Amino acid sequence: MAWDALRPDPDNVRLRRSLVAAIDRMWARALTEGAVRPDLTSGDFMLLLARVLRPLPGVPSGVDDPERSLAIALDGLRPGLTTPLPGRGPAADVLGGRSEVAQD
Amino acid sequence: MAWDALRPDPDNVRLRRSLVAAIDRMWARALTEGAVRPDLTSGDFMLLLARVLRPLPGVPSGVDDPERSLAIALDGLRPGLTTPLPGRGPAADVLGGRSEVAQD
Repeated sequence: MAWDALRPDPDNVRLRRSLVAAIDRMWARALTEGAVRPDLTSGDFMLLLARVLRPLPGVPSGVDDPERSLAIALDGLRPGLTTPLPGRGPAADVLGGRSEVAQD
Repeated sequence: MAWDALRPDPDNVRLRRSLVAAIDRMWARALTEGAVRPDLTSGDFMLLLARVLRPLPGVPSGVDDPERSLAIALDGLRPGLTTPLPGRGPAADVLGGRSEVAQD
């Protein structure tokens, strides 16, 4: 509910658009350099980050180090011994970019 | 809050303990076979799954395929070109096993 209220906020839209654009540029460069697997979109990357970085409820602090989950997930972005991915990669604006902007 | 109420439920404790034990056995076998990177514990695996499989709020259905995030994260479990992980891997009961059982 808090997110529903925040989502259309103009400052939020502007910052999100700027963040998405920056990540999208970084991802394009990483693809060009062969640093990441070529079957992933920047939208895949953003959704994975969003999932891994969300706090996990019900786990006592001290026994969970989210940095480890993050490091494992990031290793999954590397090219090399990868398994084929299901479906199609989402566009860069999957977490809010162009669609909100169009509603401005 | 729902989770706080469910957590100590005896059936929940029993099922969770059984699930954790099964995953722990599977993980031990995967380690023996060299199918997963040796610097991960089964607790790391469970926390990663819990993170990746939680529904992501605020993303329109149809643009997000959680199977893709899952496939990427699972590729991060493979041995090979891995980056060193921070901290120490959690024990298998990180998502609830022995600690709840001790309170039975």
